[in-house]
Amino acid sequence: MAKITALTGFPEWLPEQRLVEQRLIEEVRAKFELFGFTPLETRAVEPLDVLVKKGATDKEIYVLRRLHAEEGEQSDLGLHFDLTVPFARYVAQHRGALAFPFKRYQIQKVWRGERPQQGRYREFYQADIDVIGEGELSVHFDAEMALLLHEVVSSLPIPRIQLRINNRKVLEGFYRALGIEAVSDVLRSVDKLDKIGEGGVSKALIEENGLSPEQAERCLALARIRGARGEEVVASVRALGASHPLLDEGLSELAFVLDALAGLPEGAAIADLHIARGLDYYTGTVYEGVLVDHPQLGSVCSGGRYDNLASDDKHKLPGVGVSLGLSRIVGLLFAQGSLKASRATPTAVLIALNDEAQRAECYRAAKQLRARGIATEVFHAPHKFGKQIRYAERKGIPFVLFLGERTEIKDIRSGAQTTIDLDSWSPDASDLRVRIVRGTDEA
Amino acid sequence: MAKITALTGFPEWLPEQRLVEQRLIEEVRAKFELFGFTPLETRAVEPLDVLVKKGATDKEIYVLRRLHAEEGEQSDLGLHFDLTVPFARYVAQHRGALAFPFKRYQIQKVWRGERPQQGRYREFYQADIDVIGEGELSVHFDAEMALLLHEVVSSLPIPRIQLRINNRKVLEGFYRALGIEAVSDVLRSVDKLDKIGEGGVSKALIEENGLSPEQAERCLALARIRGARGEEVVASVRALGASHPLLDEGLSELAFVLDALAGLPEGAAIADLHIARGLDYYTGTVYEGVLVDHPQLGSVCSGGRYDNLASDDKHKLPGVGVSLGLSRIVGLLFAQGSLKASRATPTAVLIALNDEAQRAECYRAAKQLRARGIATEVFHAPHKFGKQIRYAERKGIPFVLFLGERTEIKDIRSGAQTTIDLDSWSPDASDLRVRIVRGTDEA
Repeated sequence: MAKITALTGFPEWLPEQRLVEQRLIEEVRAKFELFGFTPLETRAVEPLDVLVKKGATDKEIYVLRRLHAEEGEQSDLGLHFDLTVPFARYVAQHRGALAFPFKRYQIQKVWRGERPQQGRYREFYQADIDVIGEGELSVHFDAEMALLLHEVVSSLPIPRIQLRINNRKVLEGFYRALGIEAVSDVLRSVDKLDKIGEGGVSKALIEENGLSPEQAERCLALARIRGARGEEVVASVRALGASHPLLDEGLSELAFVLDALAGLPEGAAIADLHIARGLDYYTGTVYEGVLVDHPQLGSVCSGGRYDNLASDDKHKLPGVGVSLGLSRIVGLLFAQGSLKASRATPTAVLIALNDEAQRAECYRAAKQLRARGIATEVFHAPHKFGKQIRYAERKGIPFVLFLGERTEIKDIRSGAQTTIDLDSWSPDASDLRVRIVRGTDEA
Repeated sequence: MAKITALTGFPEWLPEQRLVEQRLIEEVRAKFELFGFTPLETRAVEPLDVLVKKGATDKEIYVLRRLHAEEGEQSDLGLHFDLTVPFARYVAQHRGALAFPFKRYQIQKVWRGERPQQGRYREFYQADIDVIGEGELSVHFDAEMALLLHEVVSSLPIPRIQLRINNRKVLEGFYRALGIEAVSDVLRSVDKLDKIGEGGVSKALIEENGLSPEQAERCLALARIRGARGEEVVASVRALGASHPLLDEGLSELAFVLDALAGLPEGAAIADLHIARGLDYYTGTVYEGVLVDHPQLGSVCSGGRYDNLASDDKHKLPGVGVSLGLSRIVGLLFAQGSLKASRATPTAVLIALNDEAQRAECYRAAKQLRARGIATEVFHAPHKFGKQIRYAERKGIPFVLFLGERTEIKDIRSGAQTTIDLDSWSPDASDLRVRIVRGTDEA
């Protein structure tokens, strides 16, 4: 191999890291299924017009072209930049074959040609849950998504996440009440608050979006509102004096969702009226989750209500969903060294090979152990036992088995070697499968 | 959504199909881990020079370009067309962090811009196992790969697969013995035997590769050899009279692998000397698996020994592996209707919602069931029970739970409704999780 290139923004993990990532994916998957979400995968590519029309303009889309394309052959396919746009397309396409409300989860990689930076990748895993209704979709689902997301992330060995909730109707209704026309532009400017601060947003609102200083100040006043209880948040917004039917609708939905989350631990979910989300397709509730102790990483969950993404003139297919940014989270934990696998291989037992004559017997013993669910390797060559044991040590394989007159097993951590009965022996449950171990230097 | 495009060659499954595909992937994954192979994922993209240099020219590579690329911005990334080339690159890149022999499995999608046809997709799953050694890699691994692949595919609910084995050294040594120089060209021509027949291959060998009619006939004679036993295959080749050190080496390896597979059921693995495999990187053993009852589908497994793919001038990293073409197999089974999920959702229990006042109680009951591993949904609105039961029927949810003075459960298949104790009730194991069901029309 002539040249080895590490590509910035395209993370790859070592075996002991991939074991952790895979275990997390399995746990997320199991939780999603317990809540009745069905697994789905969509193709990695979408027609460019679907991606461009439905996405925000700042998502950098990768276009595909065949290397051997004929001259003038147009490429109209791009890699998906999220899992919501493909899912909405899928539901619209297969509407007749699905039962609604249709609940699915989807754990796949997505691609964005953005400039790579800390926590921002060009290829990364998202784990999404969404529900799409036919005709209507109750706001109960907006609350359920947040509850489910909380249940999933709080069950994982990852740092604490705070879910911040807003409602696009509140923002849009408020802006309309102020007489603002360029609602999407203002949304996008406000969405940059974390990046460019109040001064930057105020400047953008006035100079780019054409707001008066007084309008800009009231937009910022709205964005400052935080609160855990519905009543309290509604009162804070009302105190700003704006009035519009869309604002009323948004506040009622936001209060409903907050009340439904009242039973969660303090700080797990709050209303945060500066959350706007960059994507165009959201029409109501929006969510954003941040690691409480690592706010610099930006959002690690996001989502919201999209009433029109899957709908067409004849069929209304409103949806709501959330997306967990798995790669960003594991990337942080690996960089910290705070999440590890108990070993670098699934193997629990290495069978030592004494000589070639013993190979068939070793294979039979391996088969016996595997039939009981014990991951087993036979060492590939009759090298000195010291070398075979070192192989086990390097991979973290906990047990080395020696066949002979007696069957003996060596625990390579303690060095203890004992005679066992091959027909019944099993490792402790804690050694049977790879475990996730929290590091000592966790923040 | 304005326009819905089904893209030829980019398969997407319905929920009840995806549940089957996912279950198969889980079973394959579990088997690979029992044999001590560690999970790995590589990024979807590779530098173009890696793909082009290491792949065959007939693999159509998809090149990536950012939609917002600046003028003149060169794209040098392509989507991987297999999992072997990326794995070899990964091992060369992370050599210092890995313990050898390094065994990994990798289940990911790959992309090929080929013309779509039956069983040929542009995006599809491959499930690969490979082992790469440092310095050397015993031919025992060539045999182990075939044994393991047989064990995996024979444990899955899929049609019977025959593994056909050859060795590139046999072909190359034989060709050299005949005085043929253009070995790669001849290999590629012989590899087309299934597609264009003996007449077509003979024509290509003579007219394109410059062989004499007598050379061409001897190449075809070699390609006709089949056999299950090493000794017998070696004798058949020897009878053709060619002699070359590389041929001897290849025959000895091929015989070794065949002898190691002697314990498999009859017809599970045979030597088939017309198997050449299209990819350039194979250097010894090559494998190809076909569905015995669906030969028209072409190969559903493939692989081989590659001594130089991961190696460089300083480090020799020989490898051997096999790849299972999952998408091609499930695509056939879905088209036949011969493999189905027992239901279209993970949900085992739907809790009926009587009125809004009951919602909190329903959520508590759902939590209780989920804590026991029972996938549970609460119906989203207090509609008439008939409508709620129809929702369960459409998704194949086996049980509907009614809370009230008594807790009652209805089996929607039999219609039987019984009083249960919510603290202890569980569905039968056969209803707890989605099962794979073989259809009646299986070939």
